[in-house]
Amino acid sequence: MKTFLDCIPCFVRQALDAARLATDDQAIHEQILREVLRKILELDFSQSPPQMGRYIHTFVRELADVKDPYRRIKDKFNRLVMDLYPELKSKVDCSSDPLATAVRLAIAGNIIDFGIRPDLEESAIKDAVSHAMLAPLDGPMSQLAKRIPEADEILYLADNAGEIVFDRLLIERLPMEKVTVVVKAGPIINDATLTDAVEVGLTKLVKVIDNGTDAPGTILDDCSEAFQQRFDEADLVIAKGQGNYETLNDLEKDIFFILKAKCPVVARDLGVQVNESVLQRSQSAPAATKGGEHNATR
Amino acid sequence: MKTFLDCIPCFVRQALDAARLATDDQAIHEQILREVLRKILELDFSQSPPQMGRYIHTFVRELADVKDPYRRIKDKFNRLVMDLYPELKSKVDCSSDPLATAVRLAIAGNIIDFGIRPDLEESAIKDAVSHAMLAPLDGPMSQLAKRIPEADEILYLADNAGEIVFDRLLIERLPMEKVTVVVKAGPIINDATLTDAVEVGLTKLVKVIDNGTDAPGTILDDCSEAFQQRFDEADLVIAKGQGNYETLNDLEKDIFFILKAKCPVVARDLGVQVNESVLQRSQSAPAATKGGEHNATR
Repeated sequence: MKTFLDCIPCFVRQALDAARLATDDQAIHEQILREVLRKILELDFSQSPPQMGRYIHTFVRELADVKDPYRRIKDKFNRLVMDLYPELKSKVDCSSDPLATAVRLAIAGNIIDFGIRPDLEESAIKDAVSHAMLAPLDGPMSQLAKRIPEADEILYLADNAGEIVFDRLLIERLPMEKVTVVVKAGPIINDATLTDAVEVGLTKLVKVIDNGTDAPGTILDDCSEAFQQRFDEADLVIAKGQGNYETLNDLEKDIFFILKAKCPVVARDLGVQVNESVLQRSQSAPAATKGGEHNATR
Repeated sequence: MKTFLDCIPCFVRQALDAARLATDDQAIHEQILREVLRKILELDFSQSPPQMGRYIHTFVRELADVKDPYRRIKDKFNRLVMDLYPELKSKVDCSSDPLATAVRLAIAGNIIDFGIRPDLEESAIKDAVSHAMLAPLDGPMSQLAKRIPEADEILYLADNAGEIVFDRLLIERLPMEKVTVVVKAGPIINDATLTDAVEVGLTKLVKVIDNGTDAPGTILDDCSEAFQQRFDEADLVIAKGQGNYETLNDLEKDIFFILKAKCPVVARDLGVQVNESVLQRSQSAPAATKGGEHNATR
């Protein structure tokens, strides 16, 4: 998905958020904001939003001289959702359709996105859980349920810290010996890295690798060779969040996108309303594996 | 009030909105957006948001070569609220406290602000009316009620098209022979100009003048001499909307600000939550005229 002009004011706001997390010095905030406006002018708007975001956040980290402005927030939300984990796990275990419930919760967890909601509070996570449990989820749930036992290699592309606790609930419903979870290789917004996977106990359950980049999505050409090979070999990819959708939606690959549509640009591209829960299969998924359901319904 | 860094992404978004209203040509949208990013870099952020907004929107109008991108929207919302006028008027007339009800409706009308909500729909106006009728309004209502009959010259600084139909309801509860309504001298966002005052029948009821400028607020130094003189002479000023608050809140003058706090920056400055109804008296209002109530309560 290319960057829309609507993304530009959002990048400016994100840069300001990151600057404020990196330092309390207001003069530096203004300096960073001005430098970022200059930087945006240099960029090619035809790139995907995560590519643009990667340039901008790398630039902000350099200007602020802070390696990971979101580290404290990531730790906080990992802890916060780990505290909810027993209650959430019981929701899954007691459900009449545990896989679908785990998918719903994985969508709820996608609210923890500091690129979109820098002021997120704990109450919003609980609201998102309640909403996700009740909201319509018209996507190809039965296709996903069918594909999981058929697949030999399942790649689970994680999105954000805190959110990966919700992902753990879904991962625990998959054949874990076949699952590889993928995190980012370096800090970018509140995207999960290996530190987060360790913090929420994922590394004890499944294989966790990084994709070799610090883009807030999966820009295949920039990813490590090791990741690219694993991506090629995987016969089922579960991709969490807007950034993975924005970077992988045009690809010839069987991918199930699981996310909350949080911005108007992505919502429009998905054909849904802002805040809607989304389970969507890639347009290019092989017809033979679709089990008779419509492609890319939600 | 000075411009906060949070205002910058908002200006970028406003410029894009204005560009899209001015032309359907997407190449021109990108060109305008890029030029506006450059323009913002030249500006002094210590100015008030309406001063910055004025520069940016003037620049967008020049780039797009369109005199008034918001003209169609202004006409539409004047008509739309005029259709509601009989029903709204009856709410005021049948109320046990018509002045307070008219103030509540004037606040509701302040939702029609295309600088903040470019996608406003009719249903949001009806929601704002319901909300304003029920929401707490803790401000100095009795001080305002006391000042109105005492004042010799009342200046009513209008804000936006559409909204001025709501203002008309309040103006009709004032001693109209003492009232002068002030609009903008030239197009800026959806701020009301003389055209709008005529469209909603205000010119038949009261004296209407313009302030000599096209800033989305009242930047006194830039206003016409005629307006400045009238402002000095007025012993009661009613100022509608965020732009007037942002430009007049530090002034030594008895001003009643009536608005809906629509952005976090203005809400923070007012000490209220976003979306709260605000009736606030200027900090500098002479204590002698305050009738024992707290200053600038809401």
